[in-house]
Amino acid sequence: MKVEIISVGSELTCGQIRDLNGPFIALKLTEIGLDVINQTIVGDDSKGLKFALKVASERADLIIITGGLGPTIDDITRETVAGFCNVSLVSDKKSVNRIENLIGNVHSQKYANNLKQAKIPEGSIVIDNSIGTAQGFLVNISKSDIICLPGVHTEMKLMFEDWVLPYILRKSCIRKRRCVRRINTFGISESMLDKKVKKLINSDEHLSYSTLVNDGIVSIRIVAYGVEEDKAISILDEIEEKIYKELGVFVFGKDDDTLEGVVSKFLKEHVLTLAVAESCTGGLVSNLLTDIQGSSKFFLGGIVSYSNKIKKDLLCVSEGLINKFGVVSTEIAKSMASGVKERTKADIGLAITGIAGPTGFEEGTDKEKPVGLVYVANVIENDLECKEYRFFGSRMDIKKRAANAALNMLRLCLSEKAINCRLRD
Amino acid sequence: MKVEIISVGSELTCGQIRDLNGPFIALKLTEIGLDVINQTIVGDDSKGLKFALKVASERADLIIITGGLGPTIDDITRETVAGFCNVSLVSDKKSVNRIENLIGNVHSQKYANNLKQAKIPEGSIVIDNSIGTAQGFLVNISKSDIICLPGVHTEMKLMFEDWVLPYILRKSCIRKRRCVRRINTFGISESMLDKKVKKLINSDEHLSYSTLVNDGIVSIRIVAYGVEEDKAISILDEIEEKIYKELGVFVFGKDDDTLEGVVSKFLKEHVLTLAVAESCTGGLVSNLLTDIQGSSKFFLGGIVSYSNKIKKDLLCVSEGLINKFGVVSTEIAKSMASGVKERTKADIGLAITGIAGPTGFEEGTDKEKPVGLVYVANVIENDLECKEYRFFGSRMDIKKRAANAALNMLRLCLSEKAINCRLRD
Repeated sequence: MKVEIISVGSELTCGQIRDLNGPFIALKLTEIGLDVINQTIVGDDSKGLKFALKVASERADLIIITGGLGPTIDDITRETVAGFCNVSLVSDKKSVNRIENLIGNVHSQKYANNLKQAKIPEGSIVIDNSIGTAQGFLVNISKSDIICLPGVHTEMKLMFEDWVLPYILRKSCIRKRRCVRRINTFGISESMLDKKVKKLINSDEHLSYSTLVNDGIVSIRIVAYGVEEDKAISILDEIEEKIYKELGVFVFGKDDDTLEGVVSKFLKEHVLTLAVAESCTGGLVSNLLTDIQGSSKFFLGGIVSYSNKIKKDLLCVSEGLINKFGVVSTEIAKSMASGVKERTKADIGLAITGIAGPTGFEEGTDKEKPVGLVYVANVIENDLECKEYRFFGSRMDIKKRAANAALNMLRLCLSEKAINCRLRD
Repeated sequence: MKVEIISVGSELTCGQIRDLNGPFIALKLTEIGLDVINQTIVGDDSKGLKFALKVASERADLIIITGGLGPTIDDITRETVAGFCNVSLVSDKKSVNRIENLIGNVHSQKYANNLKQAKIPEGSIVIDNSIGTAQGFLVNISKSDIICLPGVHTEMKLMFEDWVLPYILRKSCIRKRRCVRRINTFGISESMLDKKVKKLINSDEHLSYSTLVNDGIVSIRIVAYGVEEDKAISILDEIEEKIYKELGVFVFGKDDDTLEGVVSKFLKEHVLTLAVAESCTGGLVSNLLTDIQGSSKFFLGGIVSYSNKIKKDLLCVSEGLINKFGVVSTEIAKSMASGVKERTKADIGLAITGIAGPTGFEEGTDKEKPVGLVYVANVIENDLECKEYRFFGSRMDIKKRAANAALNMLRLCLSEKAINCRLRD
């Protein structure tokens, strides 16, 4: 089954915004063994899209188009696809109701333009958008299926996973899947990881791998191919086991696992509560933890103690300690962790203090410390631990790496204490 | 001058790696007024590339290809382009010398494969790669120029900027640069915005525009073309002025301005300090504000009061109020804003409480409120204001939209009070 992906939008052709949809769809379809032969980006231009459709329909069995389903005049996908298929656009009643409900609840303003988004080519199947007004659809012309999805990435992603992927799997009776497993690590360098896994993976002719780095997280992506699905999965299970053995605690999860997800799962399972005190990360750790559904079960809250005054007033950090060691120090990180635990009565306190840059001066002093110097402390039961880190990169890079390092340190301390840690048992 | 960009590489078509070259080249060429009509990604497959070349050469004056110039068997760009132009590949002596020097200096290993990288289509012009072995070239067929550059982004970028861009500027005698301006708004829907600006922009034959939506921020991207650069800028200045007049306070900035950036600038200029209390946004507002360089000048800190207990203990929200109105209410938002201002002695307190989903139950109760219901309050001097919002989307969408709404409400209140607000004057 050959696939072409067309992304529509002048903001994409001119390079102002990067296309997230094409690569996402390509990866998902490649994983189930489909052959993505081409990705095209065209502007908000009916003639250009029609031409791309013509070219694609001559060689692909499935064409997926994203973008151009909005309410404005430059959204041309609906009309163009209908025209290409030689059918007219008709209003879909259910979609009209969905859009009226969605918008009626939010603004009182007129939404006549949005009703355009309920129109689909005659004879097509509606693909419901559960979180937005841009409905998708599937239409067929000669030997090709054409699927149209909105350009907004979160909406497209949801519709792709809920509707498109099951549809394709059903239709193509795929058995020889290409199977992929990602193993996520923290604290080991990419070249060291590569060295350690190379000999394990290269010994199997059905496996290939690549490494990826993102905000301090180093992942190995392993692909099993050329075998039936069951066999592929068992090969991946086996290699995963070997890699765990080789890398030990560096591995924190697989596939879409995140550090905040792994920590959250542990805390929920062990019925432990957490509070966070952040200086240089400025709320990022709290933000990551509250991205997790149900985080109110374990996350009591956080204090972003950006100024020294807040460190003193809300976290009970002593002025003497600040004067003696400076705010970016082991002592202050420990004091912040104890302070936030004490103030919130959480089981665990986590604290981060550091220099995100671009300059290294500590508040109210002329003392300079190196940009990227970060201390993370946590207190679990009565054990207080602290680690020093050195990161490089931009202000935002340092924030992200420090946040991940803090979550990873907490993960390691928690799993070490897993046995003693059932405070509420 | 019409341009098509072709990126070659199976790691791109299958979505494993994202194409950085296409968007980079597109942006650079759009800025100097060229019209990028299409970007295509094809695999390491001679037939696919040939077809893309055929399609592109029928409508573009310039075709830029990146990738497929490496030393291995799956690097097919050289041969394919030569074949397409009906010429043979010849070895370029200077390139042979360059490659021998480069590799001889680095490894002792054989470099026979790399000598393939010195081959160019007969009659083409070499584009030197100063940091790698993949030489580029320019070849002409009928009305189109074809430029081939390596896929490695850093090499491509250098060669593009050092050779390709000057070549294009020289050749096309570009004076009529296309100028772009983005105007960023918050609080107005895309369709309403479109309606309001359409009549202003469409009256000028040198202007075109598109709208973009991102986490509640709606932007208009206006392009001026077909005139000299000075004239383009003055046309854009004029239309910007008209749009400001038409949209008033909905406009918060232009080009790369963000809501947190605009708020930060105001606070710094007016020497005001801010503290934030966050419930449903979970630290995101603090995180956005601390992404800004120098935020410690005005941002004292934040309290992420995820649990009711922290709302009570750290923000002094009364239990009676929570029992009476529920935590997602005007009353609690106001109490949180006052609480955080009081606790931190900041000039301004900002608070957000709401339901990010996926369910709508308030902590410790069986009361359910709709997902996406959010209250934002701020207190400036002694004025306490609160607004109710309704957002839709995923948990993360709601967090982001609520954070932007909070920053926008603060922006509006601050600019309204700008005259009275010089607390420290």
